[in-house]
Amino acid sequence: MASTVGIPIICNAAVSWEAGKPLVIEKVEVAPPKAMEVRVKIKYTSLCHTDLYFWEAKDQTPLFPRIFGHEAAGIVESVGEGVTELKEGDHVLPVFTGECKECVHCKSEESNMCDLLRINTDRGVMLSDGRSRFTAKGIPINHFLGTSTFSEYTVVHVGSLAKLDPSAPLDKVCILSCGISTGLGATLNVAKPKKGSTVAIFGLGAVGLGAAEGARIAGASRIIGVDFNPNRFEGARKFGINEFLNPKDYDKPIQEVIAEKTNGGVDRSVECTGNVDAMISAFECVHDGWGVAVLVGVPSKDAKFITKPINLLNERTLKGTFFGNYKPRSDLPSVVDMYMRKELELEKFITHRVTFSEINKAFDLMVKGEGLRCIISMDD
Amino acid sequence: MASTVGIPIICNAAVSWEAGKPLVIEKVEVAPPKAMEVRVKIKYTSLCHTDLYFWEAKDQTPLFPRIFGHEAAGIVESVGEGVTELKEGDHVLPVFTGECKECVHCKSEESNMCDLLRINTDRGVMLSDGRSRFTAKGIPINHFLGTSTFSEYTVVHVGSLAKLDPSAPLDKVCILSCGISTGLGATLNVAKPKKGSTVAIFGLGAVGLGAAEGARIAGASRIIGVDFNPNRFEGARKFGINEFLNPKDYDKPIQEVIAEKTNGGVDRSVECTGNVDAMISAFECVHDGWGVAVLVGVPSKDAKFITKPINLLNERTLKGTFFGNYKPRSDLPSVVDMYMRKELELEKFITHRVTFSEINKAFDLMVKGEGLRCIISMDD
Repeated sequence: MASTVGIPIICNAAVSWEAGKPLVIEKVEVAPPKAMEVRVKIKYTSLCHTDLYFWEAKDQTPLFPRIFGHEAAGIVESVGEGVTELKEGDHVLPVFTGECKECVHCKSEESNMCDLLRINTDRGVMLSDGRSRFTAKGIPINHFLGTSTFSEYTVVHVGSLAKLDPSAPLDKVCILSCGISTGLGATLNVAKPKKGSTVAIFGLGAVGLGAAEGARIAGASRIIGVDFNPNRFEGARKFGINEFLNPKDYDKPIQEVIAEKTNGGVDRSVECTGNVDAMISAFECVHDGWGVAVLVGVPSKDAKFITKPINLLNERTLKGTFFGNYKPRSDLPSVVDMYMRKELELEKFITHRVTFSEINKAFDLMVKGEGLRCIISMDD
Repeated sequence: MASTVGIPIICNAAVSWEAGKPLVIEKVEVAPPKAMEVRVKIKYTSLCHTDLYFWEAKDQTPLFPRIFGHEAAGIVESVGEGVTELKEGDHVLPVFTGECKECVHCKSEESNMCDLLRINTDRGVMLSDGRSRFTAKGIPINHFLGTSTFSEYTVVHVGSLAKLDPSAPLDKVCILSCGISTGLGATLNVAKPKKGSTVAIFGLGAVGLGAAEGARIAGASRIIGVDFNPNRFEGARKFGINEFLNPKDYDKPIQEVIAEKTNGGVDRSVECTGNVDAMISAFECVHDGWGVAVLVGVPSKDAKFITKPINLLNERTLKGTFFGNYKPRSDLPSVVDMYMRKELELEKFITHRVTFSEINKAFDLMVKGEGLRCIISMDD
């Protein structure tokens, strides 16, 4: 096969032409990577709620046509000028946020909120020149989160690519590039439960189950799942959740129920719904003296977190996290290693698989709330 | 001198007969200590805002007559049954909260909120028998915070006494039993600023200056003091505060002013006023990615802490502390050591000295907001 380096590639991509309308597989032209960019052949991608949210485009300034997709794994096809850390053939995870390694956040041991490559949902172009690398039917197609993985080839800033152990199976580890790592890291990197401790998880979707998986790995002895949907409990058991609470079953705030059942509160809680009432419950259900509550879910812009200061003064800690505090390039390889060592069990998150031409089925499943992760295979 | 062990002692105490009225030096009878109690000869005591607050008794169910006082240092006169850690002649700091060493909090590495001996402002009697050890004019006099140090002798639960290095000067270290340690520990144990970091302190009273002293000791390079009273700035300089902000001087929230002056926010903040607006400012002025805000000041019961969840999700941490997270018996000796090694400078907190018979002068100074700590010497 002739080299494609330096020239445009014509390939299939699932283009979203209009909000909420089925994606259309189109022939798109993918321009070669510019400085500090990498062109990646996507092997597997999966669908995350964030794709769905911006595809539905409710209460947003819509940005269409667009190529969605941000949970994926692929292989480097070519690199642009200045890229030294990656080369053709490297296995990578594209990530919706990045790590430039130069800014104050990247230089801080504590932050992963890179100034240059922090998530930007409004931008549909590449950073370097403010232009798209995709063209279909003669018009530029917007990027999404700097990844646009619903395409056989995509162009990504080098700072948003985590290099993988080449022996890691791409059809599994692709789900580590967003939701699962977000939940897992929220527990392992931020809540940090001790062995034998009690953890409450609010919201039992993929992110919440990622957080539960973190609690299981950390050796928590009691993991309480809180969700309005009782159908989620049975499936959650294999993620270590051994008690289930549905707030609808009680006529008092769920934080009071949890405090009563746990002799004053849980040691740690992780909030994965984005509902502000759940955030407040997640905070108020932790034990005084040492309890830590971690917020993961993204709330509406007008939401207000309200609590009595005494809940804080009684030595509780409230923290928020973004992408589980993982620095994409520096830290994701270690998460892949956890999977390779069989500490982290990824298979149980994967409930469906479809081919690329069936991508709209993945959207249907998520709209119906069925399953956790649907892997989309690009090699039909 | 005949031994007083096992018999009542008649001595002078400053009795508060009525809310807001001058204390009266009375002859009181101090009963011998019962099981797990210790009778202490107070050598030096100082006045803290908490004494003033309960003496004024505004918006409270008043509890009078009462012997106030909870910042002090003294010498063990005798011990009750079961007390093995202390003996006659030991130097001690009575503390308004305690450490039983048996409960879940005492057994936790993280908490100092002892279930048995946690601060109780409503109790005027000893725990063991629900009775007072003080009698004056034939009637029982209420205890305060389990310490009642405005008396030549007092009876304290052994769990609320920190044993001191006998070479530590009691007329200095007496101020470590409440406010100074509260501020110092909030910074050193909870905010934990790194060397070279930026710290904002809200409220430049004794507690806030204790917090600033902690930041100075930790090697913070920029310590910003926030207070409505500009007269406090000059004095605050010697505690390491090198910038002063008065919220009255700006027509926007002080957290925005701080963020502008510090390229996005301070690394750490410590709130020592108890005003809920200051708490919110202290939280919102820390940098995203790594900022930690620590709440120390006690707010009114109806106060509500309100912020946008995104302020948390951007990887800020909000924590509250009680007594600077120090466990009274286990940790205070190390704070005294810091003073003995000249790392912690206590002298600059001591702005006034009076004799016991002049105790009402200490109240006058505090009501007028003059000075930081006034040491009351019991040996007139």
